[in-house]
Amino acid sequence: MSKFLIDKYSALKPYTPGEQPRERKYIKLNTNESPFPPSRCAQRLAAREARRLYLYPDPNVTALTSLMAEELGVSADEVIMTNGSDEVLNFAFMAFCDENREALFPDITYGFYRVFAALSGVPYTEIPLGDDLTVSPDDYIGRRGTVFIANPNAPTGIALPLSEIERIVASDPGRVVVVDEAYVDFGTESAVSLIKKYDNLLVTGTFSKSRSMAGARLGYGVGSAELIPDLVRIKYSTNPYNVNRMTAAAGLGALLDRKYFKCNCKKIIENREWTASELSALGFEMTPTRANFLFVKSDKISGKELYLALRREGILVRHFDSPRISDYVRITVGSKKQMQILVDKIKNLSEMTK
Amino acid sequence: MSKFLIDKYSALKPYTPGEQPRERKYIKLNTNESPFPPSRCAQRLAAREARRLYLYPDPNVTALTSLMAEELGVSADEVIMTNGSDEVLNFAFMAFCDENREALFPDITYGFYRVFAALSGVPYTEIPLGDDLTVSPDDYIGRRGTVFIANPNAPTGIALPLSEIERIVASDPGRVVVVDEAYVDFGTESAVSLIKKYDNLLVTGTFSKSRSMAGARLGYGVGSAELIPDLVRIKYSTNPYNVNRMTAAAGLGALLDRKYFKCNCKKIIENREWTASELSALGFEMTPTRANFLFVKSDKISGKELYLALRREGILVRHFDSPRISDYVRITVGSKKQMQILVDKIKNLSEMTK
Repeated sequence: MSKFLIDKYSALKPYTPGEQPRERKYIKLNTNESPFPPSRCAQRLAAREARRLYLYPDPNVTALTSLMAEELGVSADEVIMTNGSDEVLNFAFMAFCDENREALFPDITYGFYRVFAALSGVPYTEIPLGDDLTVSPDDYIGRRGTVFIANPNAPTGIALPLSEIERIVASDPGRVVVVDEAYVDFGTESAVSLIKKYDNLLVTGTFSKSRSMAGARLGYGVGSAELIPDLVRIKYSTNPYNVNRMTAAAGLGALLDRKYFKCNCKKIIENREWTASELSALGFEMTPTRANFLFVKSDKISGKELYLALRREGILVRHFDSPRISDYVRITVGSKKQMQILVDKIKNLSEMTK
Repeated sequence: MSKFLIDKYSALKPYTPGEQPRERKYIKLNTNESPFPPSRCAQRLAAREARRLYLYPDPNVTALTSLMAEELGVSADEVIMTNGSDEVLNFAFMAFCDENREALFPDITYGFYRVFAALSGVPYTEIPLGDDLTVSPDDYIGRRGTVFIANPNAPTGIALPLSEIERIVASDPGRVVVVDEAYVDFGTESAVSLIKKYDNLLVTGTFSKSRSMAGARLGYGVGSAELIPDLVRIKYSTNPYNVNRMTAAAGLGALLDRKYFKCNCKKIIENREWTASELSALGFEMTPTRANFLFVKSDKISGKELYLALRREGILVRHFDSPRISDYVRITVGSKKQMQILVDKIKNLSEMTK
């Protein structure tokens, strides 16, 4: 930190991305990436766009916004495309929270919410999950504040049913509820259908997981035609060309290739269920995940030890050294082969610790 | 604007990007893009990266940062790579300005400075350019505040010599001076050489103009190894994966292809000088530009009329409807052929208005 940094940011604790080690080749099950390459159509359109990089991108991201809206069953003016869903989440913290409107989110959730709140200098309350690590909608009802709920939640993978999301949204039309659906495509019902009914709902999503585009940075927000312009205003005040030409093209390609997308989501769900049943058989406990990751613990080995042991074996998973969840590791669901290797390695470890 | 937008942003006037019309094909001389495609090496590396989009980018942008540092003759810890230079400029407004440290910049300059200041809620003073539209270094000396100077300035194209930049930086080691070198490669001496001597200097640059990559969104900041971590801290609190895989790869390719870069800069300078002399011969007045654009006016036709007349003829230039410069139009320097068409069209207009 230099002597020039303003006081406001001197205590800021930035987000810590999952490790990306380069010293050896790992099976990467630590950042919830897809094990599948992006759609060939996405690759082709992105590659073709490389020639046209000398021209600015369309700041309105017109073509992609329209196709995304079609995919979601809404109008184009109800959608904003962003540089990853982190960007639309940051915009939402900026637009809808201030000293009089705090942010509310679970104590155990996507770690960036806390950072965004601190960055914007807005107060926030972390509402404890239940003992079973579930979100209780009633905790968010009857209190002021802008709500941020990841559904399914991370790193637990536990989803709320749509009716419960609706109950939170409907409980107070005077405040915004943001539903972060980064992992929705692996078996959770989306809240997008509610945006026609509630103007205080913002749903966010990403191409990073289910559409194999973590490396391209593409996300979106869906909300009423009154709400979206607030975010567009922030976008044009920070980063008008927020979606570059190649990413916009890749996004189009990914949306056009619906079959590949559906097929990949199905495979991830199958691999998740297979891995869950194998690990259960080995005595692991886990949350009822609907995401592309498992959140597991064992009474035979601590979360930290399991993380380190797998790392030695060439498999990266994520361990959070936080109260309440330090017993767990989060394991991204990869290809069937990756999951088989994982299960084999864990079996070997179990043998050793017998 | 929805009822949910916080008061702070309700009066925000977002940046207005140059128009990108789609109804007909124009010769685009309105957004200072390069007329040349990106280096083939950049295209190839970007296209190849499309396959690997399922993996997150390297948040430290390690390879590109190292090569950029080498290109600039500094160390990697003195460089931050960003999503366009708009991002590093925004970070600088966030990191180095607050209610006690206002932002200082010319009244006529890159229009985004005003927006960034408003976005961060920091006070700012716009210091009038001289009657000849030049920046007077003495206006920035002896007053508190973080200085933002585009060198060469936009939309005038006028550059300060390095000695004058140094005088501003040296005058007060207690405040940061940001030198925005978006257009430096077309004939201005860079201030990067000063960063070893002054820890209060931040130089920013972009791949949008001289490296034909406006559509990829790549910029950078260069400063002391104490200053850069402040910006990195903001990056990790907003957008850790700010440079996507394809853009990082294209950036590497562009840096590797130095010959193409040098050759394109030379051509733009030649085309600029040719166009300037043709327009002078037609009676136009213009600023002594060092950028990839001309800033011209005529006493025979108003800036607005010239803009509209050229638009009707299929050529887009930029007109700023602002006090002091509304007589001018800004014309991006394109290929020789584009410049010839421009000059011909203007000759025809001159004939008509005789």
